[in-house]
Amino acid sequence: MAEPRISSIDGKLAEEFAVPSHVEEVKEKMAAFAAHHAAAGRQVVLITSGGTKVPLESRTVRFLDNFSSGRRGASSAEYFIESGYAVIFLHRHRSLYPYTRMFSTMNMLDALKFRSGEGASSNCEVVVNQQVLPNIAKVLKRYQEVKESRLLLPIEFNTLSEYLHLLKAAAQALSTIGSKAMFYLAAAVSDFYIPASEMPEHKIQSSNGPLQLSMNMVPKILSPLVKDWAPQAFVISFKLETDATILLDKARRALDTYRHQAVVANVLDSRRGYVVVVTPETQDELLLTEEDEKNEVEIECRIVSNLTSAHKVFISQQAG
Amino acid sequence: MAEPRISSIDGKLAEEFAVPSHVEEVKEKMAAFAAHHAAAGRQVVLITSGGTKVPLESRTVRFLDNFSSGRRGASSAEYFIESGYAVIFLHRHRSLYPYTRMFSTMNMLDALKFRSGEGASSNCEVVVNQQVLPNIAKVLKRYQEVKESRLLLPIEFNTLSEYLHLLKAAAQALSTIGSKAMFYLAAAVSDFYIPASEMPEHKIQSSNGPLQLSMNMVPKILSPLVKDWAPQAFVISFKLETDATILLDKARRALDTYRHQAVVANVLDSRRGYVVVVTPETQDELLLTEEDEKNEVEIECRIVSNLTSAHKVFISQQAG
Repeated sequence: MAEPRISSIDGKLAEEFAVPSHVEEVKEKMAAFAAHHAAAGRQVVLITSGGTKVPLESRTVRFLDNFSSGRRGASSAEYFIESGYAVIFLHRHRSLYPYTRMFSTMNMLDALKFRSGEGASSNCEVVVNQQVLPNIAKVLKRYQEVKESRLLLPIEFNTLSEYLHLLKAAAQALSTIGSKAMFYLAAAVSDFYIPASEMPEHKIQSSNGPLQLSMNMVPKILSPLVKDWAPQAFVISFKLETDATILLDKARRALDTYRHQAVVANVLDSRRGYVVVVTPETQDELLLTEEDEKNEVEIECRIVSNLTSAHKVFISQQAG
Repeated sequence: MAEPRISSIDGKLAEEFAVPSHVEEVKEKMAAFAAHHAAAGRQVVLITSGGTKVPLESRTVRFLDNFSSGRRGASSAEYFIESGYAVIFLHRHRSLYPYTRMFSTMNMLDALKFRSGEGASSNCEVVVNQQVLPNIAKVLKRYQEVKESRLLLPIEFNTLSEYLHLLKAAAQALSTIGSKAMFYLAAAVSDFYIPASEMPEHKIQSSNGPLQLSMNMVPKILSPLVKDWAPQAFVISFKLETDATILLDKARRALDTYRHQAVVANVLDSRRGYVVVVTPETQDELLLTEEDEKNEVEIECRIVSNLTSAHKVFISQQAG
């Protein structure tokens, strides 16, 4: 019964969303990364992060976008690595990045200075002013270690089309490691798009008067991901609402519909201090206390801790 | 005759576009900056740069955006400063920034290293790897000089509303220095918006089916800017099209409609190597040759050179 619906999502993906030219190459890279780390006894998480860009014109001047700095995905990547995971970081171009995120809001030139000291040569040396960036040595050290150990594979997307095709490729690439794979789908993906066939080629002219846009609904890719592409994996989706009253109901409905393992539910205004991890059986509220905030604890630390424990149980159940 | 239309733009601005809370404070800052530099014999240019964000919901999850990295505005700012101008840089949050733009596409942590050398203390010093960033010393020096001399006043916007109100404030602030002020309106401003009164409060639900958006046309703020807010200033607008065949016609029509001094016309695909500066009397084609490109000449160098010469003539004509 499911067959026609699923192949129709595959068909839609091929027809209405331009396939990025490098998708096969990226897929092989991800498969090799996953196989390597699984063989070394590690779990592998695919994190999606940032918003998606939905072009309104094929030579794109205008686009629809989703609010997302990529903060949650970038910080979660760090905590997954600390928990022993290898991380594929599928993120929006120029969204926040692990480690770098800590100073991405500032102008780097304000944090650099010429090295003071003797000798003409030292006058040209440019150093980081550690009064401006007190954590830089620690962050750089950790960044270099992670790079050295190849625990982080960054993959970029920009448009919704790129996101959808790269996520499908990732799911297929990770299917080879079964339940050791986790999908942590934190990206803010558009629900709406304009099919390639209905898109004007050129910039929409404002002289034509007010703009009437009719946008189709983006196919729910979570469905084939869970059912077909990576059926043994541990899959987490995210639900962000601005209206708290409908949030948990929507999270439960998503679990019923897609049959995946958990939904991280959060409300726009409180998302940095409070989330609910909803599974078919449980509902864990994760909350930062004032004490936590004073100690600069991040909610992603709690989310990742909750989910890696659940993933461990899941793996042993699948094996048993 | 013009009165009702102009006051209607002012009225629309107040009614349909939320006024940023800091607009008066910014206006005073800009007025003081302009007065100070004009007294020191400098011209002052207001550069707008980057795209505008148009929210679709009042608690914004989704928004319409315009393609713009802010490259043209950021590099032009540098050339204006080299030409002796003081620059107010009204730019989209996180768009490219003067000087910093040269390495904004890379991950800064890849350009940093621990200082090698004797002594325990040097182990904690973090320095820039100048093999990765060969120009950093030159750029940092220039950045620090410009900061020291206070030739650059950065002002940020994010949404279309912020852009419109801050531009109006800038125009009023610069009106005090008359023809010594130039407006270089390079930002990619949305032509469409959803009025505050018609905006849903909460995130639009995808379960409601395909999205029908009806967007109003943004008032043409160039009109009151030229006629009322800064009537003596030298005003440049930009026209970006994807279709070259309509470009010059649209540029001429803009000059006829708004009666400002010049339009910089460019086509999306060739915008980094070719523009036409259109004035009521002239039409200057600026083109980078292969030789120029080999020498890493930027088109903004030519644009700024063309416009600062024209501005000089304009000032002496106004005085005469």
